[in-house]
Amino acid sequence: MKREMHLGAFLMETGHHLAAWRLDEVQADAGLDIHAWIRLAQLAEAACFDALFVADSVAANTGPGADRVARADRLDPLTLLPALAVATQRIGLIGTATTSYNEPYHLARKFASLDHISGGRAGWNLVTTDNAAEAGNFGRAEHYSHVDRYARAEEFHRVVTALWDSWDDASFVRDKRSGQYYDAATLRTPLHRGEHFCVDGPLNVARTPQGWPVVVQAGSSERGRELAARTAEVVFTAQASFETAQAFYRDLKQRVVAAGRDSDSLKIMPGLSVIVAPTLEEARSREAQLQALVHPEAGLALLARMIGNFDLGGVELDAPLPDLPMTDSGQRSRQQLLTSIAGNERLTVRQLYLRIAGGRGHFTLVGTPQSVADAMQHWFENGAADGFNIMAADLPGGLERFCELVVPELRRRGLFRTTYQGKTLRDHLGLQRPVRER
Amino acid sequence: MKREMHLGAFLMETGHHLAAWRLDEVQADAGLDIHAWIRLAQLAEAACFDALFVADSVAANTGPGADRVARADRLDPLTLLPALAVATQRIGLIGTATTSYNEPYHLARKFASLDHISGGRAGWNLVTTDNAAEAGNFGRAEHYSHVDRYARAEEFHRVVTALWDSWDDASFVRDKRSGQYYDAATLRTPLHRGEHFCVDGPLNVARTPQGWPVVVQAGSSERGRELAARTAEVVFTAQASFETAQAFYRDLKQRVVAAGRDSDSLKIMPGLSVIVAPTLEEARSREAQLQALVHPEAGLALLARMIGNFDLGGVELDAPLPDLPMTDSGQRSRQQLLTSIAGNERLTVRQLYLRIAGGRGHFTLVGTPQSVADAMQHWFENGAADGFNIMAADLPGGLERFCELVVPELRRRGLFRTTYQGKTLRDHLGLQRPVRER
Repeated sequence: MKREMHLGAFLMETGHHLAAWRLDEVQADAGLDIHAWIRLAQLAEAACFDALFVADSVAANTGPGADRVARADRLDPLTLLPALAVATQRIGLIGTATTSYNEPYHLARKFASLDHISGGRAGWNLVTTDNAAEAGNFGRAEHYSHVDRYARAEEFHRVVTALWDSWDDASFVRDKRSGQYYDAATLRTPLHRGEHFCVDGPLNVARTPQGWPVVVQAGSSERGRELAARTAEVVFTAQASFETAQAFYRDLKQRVVAAGRDSDSLKIMPGLSVIVAPTLEEARSREAQLQALVHPEAGLALLARMIGNFDLGGVELDAPLPDLPMTDSGQRSRQQLLTSIAGNERLTVRQLYLRIAGGRGHFTLVGTPQSVADAMQHWFENGAADGFNIMAADLPGGLERFCELVVPELRRRGLFRTTYQGKTLRDHLGLQRPVRER
Repeated sequence: MKREMHLGAFLMETGHHLAAWRLDEVQADAGLDIHAWIRLAQLAEAACFDALFVADSVAANTGPGADRVARADRLDPLTLLPALAVATQRIGLIGTATTSYNEPYHLARKFASLDHISGGRAGWNLVTTDNAAEAGNFGRAEHYSHVDRYARAEEFHRVVTALWDSWDDASFVRDKRSGQYYDAATLRTPLHRGEHFCVDGPLNVARTPQGWPVVVQAGSSERGRELAARTAEVVFTAQASFETAQAFYRDLKQRVVAAGRDSDSLKIMPGLSVIVAPTLEEARSREAQLQALVHPEAGLALLARMIGNFDLGGVELDAPLPDLPMTDSGQRSRQQLLTSIAGNERLTVRQLYLRIAGGRGHFTLVGTPQSVADAMQHWFENGAADGFNIMAADLPGGLERFCELVVPELRRRGLFRTTYQGKTLRDHLGLQRPVRER
């Protein structure tokens, strides 16, 4: 069978561009409007995307400049996705939830419930918290260190998957004649006793259509890669160029094999920030329109957040970024990426925040359907990607244009499905259903 | 305006009767089938119920006899309700979530998200955990004591409501021209520092359509009543007779007034376990059919759980219940209720578990539409209830029969609405929208 691309629709309120909410045609409060979300989900499903994806943070960003950014009011992904599940039939539903400030029992149960409700379309983007402000919402004076976060994340994954395997696929016999509802002999109670968690179990949800919801990760640090190699089935990653993407892809696939897994059991999907139009002029004009709407305070607030919550108050906009210490937040990889871009290209602060205003450091394409498809094909066929997580600059328009212009071009090239073949997210991604060992 | 009854549809997988899942016409795995849940929600909405209600537990009951009870596999309410929100337009959606093993920030956010998604129909049944087994799923060797649970619950409520009031109704100005997204001057960051919780806030969700989701409680102990008098807007309660219901109603309304509130700002809705049919013979025959399907091990498991998780292994079925110490679990009120019923009526163990197999100690009616409506009217008009939480023995059949037979009879008597007048759960219940103080 011919290898096909996997596509995720990375949905974010009004769109990924920092100023998208200010466009006339964008609904500024779309993030809280379930009907707007349903339209986006159905749009991505009509184009046969593997999944839609939503990010998360369990803290409101209300620092300097945050009042100029459309991020302080958002829906909880695990409350949003069940609503989208009943408004769609096939598309996968991937939600982010942090291992830093959650309990494994709650998350295991919620993703298992979502997998049942969606008929096997749930995915969990397992992250460690990249925002120190979250600590203060959960009774901690200080955020966990990078090392502790990853140790906790790995144990969290072990507990959650043990809970998902509490029951066998056939445990619930529900035999009306004898009155036996489940077969107690098949039950496996985790009784986990670890460094970070003690969880008895079993889970109070039957094993799910997918066995386990798909486990997605996005960490790019050394520890993030090691954890992904052992436990992830999809990795989202921010790569600024083909060369870095190819190096990342090669490195991570080697680690997967070193961990004793089939290299194809983990799909690598870089983020792709895209502005597409029938002509290059139209695409560039749309980009310029968006960039002109970036308020300097909003730009600085984004930049400060992306490099690890440094205070950039009073910084000179038209000078280079001052030297900063290395952050211990989850943004360390992103900080390295951005400071290297700024250094290599000798960007001013203003140029740097405009550079990330659209894609936050992700690979960015502004072009025609042909040029966008060319780049995607190049990455896909040369060991840099198994697919892409599509980040439209503005929503729904940017996603509509991607579906209308780029998806048909990818299909003409035989790179993307024309119809869903399977029913579950694992089917779409070509991932095996986990076997529960007896 | 004429006072009308409030009706909740208390939905529980295959129905409230312990043996309902064994009936031929009942779908035994309905609890995991979102389509079955949607049919129930739409059925209750077509009859203009104020709300549907789902209970919860964050532990699987897998003790002796549990393999004969349809309770070990269920969906998480906060994952289920958003799915039901988009499949309905008007009915309220009340979900249970414990304050004992959750974080206020997570719950505040999830119920706020549900309120946005449903257009103002969310309700939170705030409980303390009544099942000591939950402790083991959250890293605690021992369950909290009764006193600690209530102290924690009250502080939890304070934190959650402060988070819901982080933002003003008008905070999110989203002014495209100036680029101002929210008005920072209106933000109020809780910075809560308490005995059980330290939570900075603010919440990352805008203030909701209802201001606050409706706060529901179900505690009947002294501490439960005191907490409800100060903080609840709806109280669900298990009352075995008109006399006890009337005494409870009078007591709680007095406490509400003593707490400085309008007595009508808290609605009291006893559970009503009901089997209705056109004739009394048919109703009794259906009850007998269900009772005959109760397996003794299932009956004992239910009884053990209801009186506080005592081990009833080896107990003589046709003798009185042995004397037991008072439980410290959340089931203390239920234990008192059941042991007093057993003592007063000199019931054997078998008779006692059959007594609760349908309604778990809630008031139970087996009769015709007229006799059921008579009893409901009597309670409603004589200071025992503001409405009822309807517990159908089997689902969906039992709820269908209630809607077809009893609801029209209540309407003929002018006791229940014929159409929804408002849009939010607060509208249906006649509850005021909380004003956020500046």
